[in-house]
Amino acid sequence: MKIIFLGAGNVATHLAWALKENGHEIVQIYSRTQLSAETLAQQLDTDFCISLDKLKQADLYIYALSDNAIESVVNQVNIYSGIHIHTAGSVNMNIFERKFEKFGVFYPLQTFSKDKEIDFSQVPIFVEGCNKAVSQTLYNLAKTLTNRPFEASSAQRIQLHIAAVFACNFSNYLYRIAADLLLKNNLPFDILQPLIMETASKIQTLSPDEAQTGPAHRQDMKTLQKQLEIIENEDYKKIYSEMSEQISSRNRK
Amino acid sequence: MKIIFLGAGNVATHLAWALKENGHEIVQIYSRTQLSAETLAQQLDTDFCISLDKLKQADLYIYALSDNAIESVVNQVNIYSGIHIHTAGSVNMNIFERKFEKFGVFYPLQTFSKDKEIDFSQVPIFVEGCNKAVSQTLYNLAKTLTNRPFEASSAQRIQLHIAAVFACNFSNYLYRIAADLLLKNNLPFDILQPLIMETASKIQTLSPDEAQTGPAHRQDMKTLQKQLEIIENEDYKKIYSEMSEQISSRNRK
Repeated sequence: MKIIFLGAGNVATHLAWALKENGHEIVQIYSRTQLSAETLAQQLDTDFCISLDKLKQADLYIYALSDNAIESVVNQVNIYSGIHIHTAGSVNMNIFERKFEKFGVFYPLQTFSKDKEIDFSQVPIFVEGCNKAVSQTLYNLAKTLTNRPFEASSAQRIQLHIAAVFACNFSNYLYRIAADLLLKNNLPFDILQPLIMETASKIQTLSPDEAQTGPAHRQDMKTLQKQLEIIENEDYKKIYSEMSEQISSRNRK
Repeated sequence: MKIIFLGAGNVATHLAWALKENGHEIVQIYSRTQLSAETLAQQLDTDFCISLDKLKQADLYIYALSDNAIESVVNQVNIYSGIHIHTAGSVNMNIFERKFEKFGVFYPLQTFSKDKEIDFSQVPIFVEGCNKAVSQTLYNLAKTLTNRPFEASSAQRIQLHIAAVFACNFSNYLYRIAADLLLKNNLPFDILQPLIMETASKIQTLSPDEAQTGPAHRQDMKTLQKQLEIIENEDYKKIYSEMSEQISSRNRK
């Protein structure tokens, strides 16, 4: 497929690379920011533009933009052919419906950071199309990238995104807290890396309920109290109390 | 070394196996519960007892018990020779000092679950001894199991334990929330496994600050508001609000 990317951030970069490596043709990158557009276009050996008037013809337009930027870009696009899709978990497909004939969503359930490669073959990709033919096209496209293609409605996708926020974004924030606590005690963060890997790895074979350990799980109130007294940061105290309370109360049920 | 374990739970089981595999002799398992004592002793092809009066002579007594059980077991032990150590993050070494001549702590920074093997060679182990000779003995013992032995004071160890509670126990609780949200929407938990592995894997090469992604990190208030409205469970709402607020406010600083 001939594909144009609108956006040149982390999702666009990782997805464009994966599509190119799997035989698709990336014909153009649009970004408001010349540096971003040009950098990604050069990496992919393709063209770029910084004005939406300069968009070329393509089979597929991928809006890999932050959630709140999608609508405004949609409003400015003047090409009505092709399939128009976004990659956002929490944006409804119908953001396209007043403007385009063929549209949909292509949501890879993964966290994308600069300088960290992704193996797309294991990334679940959730597609939604405005009709059966578009759904099938997007599903087939997903199959060229991953062993785990799925169809999901906009309502399901927002639930997936919320679950991902808990499992990924908030877990990473807990790592930041842990790193900060260690730093303040002159201990290096890397001593926690095996524990963090094992915590994630356990739930590949155990359910998260089975995998739960720790003082709150054991209802060890003495240790909970002692640790809470030692934590100085008020924000961290709040999270410690709330999480411990919820973990213990599940075990009391 | 001839080693006796007091306790037959997850830590005792994993640690006893690792010690045996590395050439140490486990001479006895004590547990109040006959089934636990006997099961672990049989696995290790050694003796067991369910009364502290029946403890044998050994070089090392490892109290791998829940934090609050250690003191009461210490009070009942009538053997004063050998080195007496516990494996708890949040228990001070001085719990042993009124009773024994040689004592210390041997704290493996890892999460141990039944039915999940551990590669000890990457597990950081923090030792503390009542004197230099004991510290050295415990450090050497740690070296037989892991490439990452460290010395740490009781004060440092409790900080390590608190950091581990955030990075491991609380992360796992977030996985439980995510699993629950998916279940309620007829979506299988295993679609989150690649995301969870990638989240943990990222911080092996990026700092947790660099690895942060998500709507709160982008200060995408519209998505935060929408997601918060969709979450029904009041407990989950509390965690969502608090974590999002803390993540956004870090970026505002």
